[in-house]
Amino acid sequence: MVGLSEAMGRLRTKDKSESIQESHYASPEELNLAIRDLQRVFSGPNQTTTDPDALRTYGSSENSYHPTAAHAIIVRPSSTEDVVHIVNIARKYRVPIVAYSGATSLEGHFSGYSTGSICLDMSGMDKILQINVADSDLVCQPGARWEDINQKLKSDGIPLFFPLDPGPGATIGGMIGTGCSGTNAVRYGTARAEWFLNVTAVLPNGHIVKTRRRARKSAAGFDTTKLFIGAEGTLGIITEVTLRLAPFLPTKVAMAQFPNVEVAVSAVQEILNSPHGPHIQCIELLDNNMMDAINKAGLVERPYPVLDTLFFKIQGSAECISSASKTIQAIVKKHGSKTFKFAATEEEADDLWQNRKYALMSSLAAYPGTRCWTTDVCVPVSKLPQLVYETKEDLSRAKLPNTTVGHVGDGNFHAFILFRENQLEEASEAVHRLVQRAINLDGTCTGEHGVGVGKKEYLLDELGEGTIELMKTIKRAVDPLNLLNPGKLYPDSNASKDED
Amino acid sequence: MVGLSEAMGRLRTKDKSESIQESHYASPEELNLAIRDLQRVFSGPNQTTTDPDALRTYGSSENSYHPTAAHAIIVRPSSTEDVVHIVNIARKYRVPIVAYSGATSLEGHFSGYSTGSICLDMSGMDKILQINVADSDLVCQPGARWEDINQKLKSDGIPLFFPLDPGPGATIGGMIGTGCSGTNAVRYGTARAEWFLNVTAVLPNGHIVKTRRRARKSAAGFDTTKLFIGAEGTLGIITEVTLRLAPFLPTKVAMAQFPNVEVAVSAVQEILNSPHGPHIQCIELLDNNMMDAINKAGLVERPYPVLDTLFFKIQGSAECISSASKTIQAIVKKHGSKTFKFAATEEEADDLWQNRKYALMSSLAAYPGTRCWTTDVCVPVSKLPQLVYETKEDLSRAKLPNTTVGHVGDGNFHAFILFRENQLEEASEAVHRLVQRAINLDGTCTGEHGVGVGKKEYLLDELGEGTIELMKTIKRAVDPLNLLNPGKLYPDSNASKDED
Repeated sequence: MVGLSEAMGRLRTKDKSESIQESHYASPEELNLAIRDLQRVFSGPNQTTTDPDALRTYGSSENSYHPTAAHAIIVRPSSTEDVVHIVNIARKYRVPIVAYSGATSLEGHFSGYSTGSICLDMSGMDKILQINVADSDLVCQPGARWEDINQKLKSDGIPLFFPLDPGPGATIGGMIGTGCSGTNAVRYGTARAEWFLNVTAVLPNGHIVKTRRRARKSAAGFDTTKLFIGAEGTLGIITEVTLRLAPFLPTKVAMAQFPNVEVAVSAVQEILNSPHGPHIQCIELLDNNMMDAINKAGLVERPYPVLDTLFFKIQGSAECISSASKTIQAIVKKHGSKTFKFAATEEEADDLWQNRKYALMSSLAAYPGTRCWTTDVCVPVSKLPQLVYETKEDLSRAKLPNTTVGHVGDGNFHAFILFRENQLEEASEAVHRLVQRAINLDGTCTGEHGVGVGKKEYLLDELGEGTIELMKTIKRAVDPLNLLNPGKLYPDSNASKDED
Repeated sequence: MVGLSEAMGRLRTKDKSESIQESHYASPEELNLAIRDLQRVFSGPNQTTTDPDALRTYGSSENSYHPTAAHAIIVRPSSTEDVVHIVNIARKYRVPIVAYSGATSLEGHFSGYSTGSICLDMSGMDKILQINVADSDLVCQPGARWEDINQKLKSDGIPLFFPLDPGPGATIGGMIGTGCSGTNAVRYGTARAEWFLNVTAVLPNGHIVKTRRRARKSAAGFDTTKLFIGAEGTLGIITEVTLRLAPFLPTKVAMAQFPNVEVAVSAVQEILNSPHGPHIQCIELLDNNMMDAINKAGLVERPYPVLDTLFFKIQGSAECISSASKTIQAIVKKHGSKTFKFAATEEEADDLWQNRKYALMSSLAAYPGTRCWTTDVCVPVSKLPQLVYETKEDLSRAKLPNTTVGHVGDGNFHAFILFRENQLEEASEAVHRLVQRAINLDGTCTGEHGVGVGKKEYLLDELGEGTIELMKTIKRAVDPLNLLNPGKLYPDSNASKDED
């Protein structure tokens, strides 16, 4: 039997060669000089680490199965100026820099670079610097976690919140880098909407830019803030951010169960297009396998029917929530749902929503001895039923247990593929087929998890040569030495096409 | 007395020299060769024009007072491939290309280039190519007008609409170029949010790119769609677009009047942060001068009180609109409003909203013999009262009649400055002071009208040298010959700083 680490080694060897020649990076001697310079400038306690365990841990993730490498040094800046110092040293010796903070990403975004990389640990730059209640905005450092920001607003009695809600533990800097979203996206949009009013970033040339002022709107040219959203730390290092906040509204939770995904999706479309659409904060799909896993995991008092299920968060004033829920109930009934449960109390609402929140945990608990490959894709909403149906058929043929959650209002679909040690390659191949299926349905290889190492091979197929070349043109112009997070995001070129 | 055209000539001479040397563009002989090539390829009726009147008209705007130049030729493509042809000919002879469609912009975006430019008239590429009702999206050409799109959806009985609503006559391509918004932005955000799912664009190198697929969300790298939003036709020519649509909801209109702008803005903030906030589609401020102009223009049956006034559009189900309007009434009363008028019928609603719609027309009608300089800035919402107050004081000192409308929920402020022939320079200087005031309040020189020629001198002050250099780095990488709309958007460099 092939062990997991051996199988991961095999996957690793599949990785294509880098498009930028490794030979232009620091030699081992130059790398040592860079480390020495960094240690000299950042000589305070814990400001740098070269402990081998830490270098390995910071360069890999338990949540992904992509090639990894240990970093050469971890540096912990505490200001924009510190980051400028680090970038300048890195440039002097041509050492790659990998930004790191929440470490929650799933596609190998923060893995080390093979010739030796600086792990720029931003997690200590986590301060909230300014809360402008009258303007509904907030200035913070990139290491701040979205959950801490919302907790701070709540405990200060400020009736505002930041609506992007990716995985627990995610930080603002990583959320920008990944172009995140979450369950609230159906109402509030994603990181690519207008929640980031401006960023302060250090560019590879060591220059500091602040992309915009604090006004909510501006038509002063193309928005350079957007350049950094989804760039996965490859165009600049974010050191400060102004977030726009939304009014915090009362919410209620409801649940409805359906005979299949197709009718669930039709119900969602009708609800969103109704005059009660503006009250829908979230619509989450948990498939029958997921409901089964929740039952098996034993986290619930009474087992749920094993059916494709929608969870709703409905927001607004008490009377509007109540009238919206009546409309929703009528619509889901029309589309074949036999059950509609509306949480009567706060506690009941929390209990219901926890099923969504602990989806991954329940999946693992239901299949003891397995690991989980988590992946996401996104397709036009009308294609979602086909995607879900074909994926489940495929995974069943591959004998891989699986559960599904989806931000169904956006066509965004997450599969948790559970596998045993000897099935890593099968799991990897099933993910590959899932991604191809999504792209063939006019969709994307990732709705919210990003590209990192894990999805870059699909970008050419998804976006076409022209768009990839445009992305690379910008990358080369902004980061001509390819210092920032090399090996991530941009598809590797074929040797013959490599223009560098 | 100095005539208007003479005064405009004087303003023209103030224009700084271009940062890109004009000498690298086509010589007169080369320009003639380019024209000949274009005429040969586009030999159908009306496909090209070199009529001097048309060249002048297409190169200038009645709505702006910035330097202009006639184009050398107007070309009318009807497909992406046509645009590739034109771009390739332009590149061969180094002739600037200026994209043109709705011609509603206010900052000289489509004026000709002094050494001779190709006016790329996209207004004929105005087809709606696909309506995907189940996915709430629509594919169209860039010459399509937003009003026609919404009319088409309505007449087909499709309960969806495209929520960006800039000036009447604006086209999708221009809306992308300008990074537009409009009265709906307080609820739906701007062009920089997620309404443009993808664009097909022809780059200066003649390559066609399609920035994304049709899924609503994607985390596949930084979003190259956003590069073109607000780029004012300087990075590529848009030839096809996928728009996201929103559910069309029933609306009602209401009006409240206030003793001053400060209390009106406080009322707005409280309304937006209430549980009824999601029902607010628009909140427009018309100042006392504007209300006076409406009365004077005689477009209303009975004169309104001359007070700072808010107009609301409230959306949702009938019962939610009704409960929202009760909350709004209570809040505006608390903030000192003595009047609250809620339109009982559709007709009354249309009548009320027309006052907002015909603001410019009313202003001109109220001051016969004047022309109007329309400008916009945007500041953090809490700074809006100060901005409005100081601007009105300033304009009063300058003896320039003026009216104000504002997208007050976003801090976006439009001034209509009315001037006689001999006051053009005073008007120009008052606009200059207004912009400086907005920037000093952490705001932007333009909330939604864009930069063009008129605002580019402010960008360095507003965004800083680093951000401007980043914008120019991208421009140079994508358009190394500076063929697309030169002289617009990017601030001119000082000779000493000019790195080209």
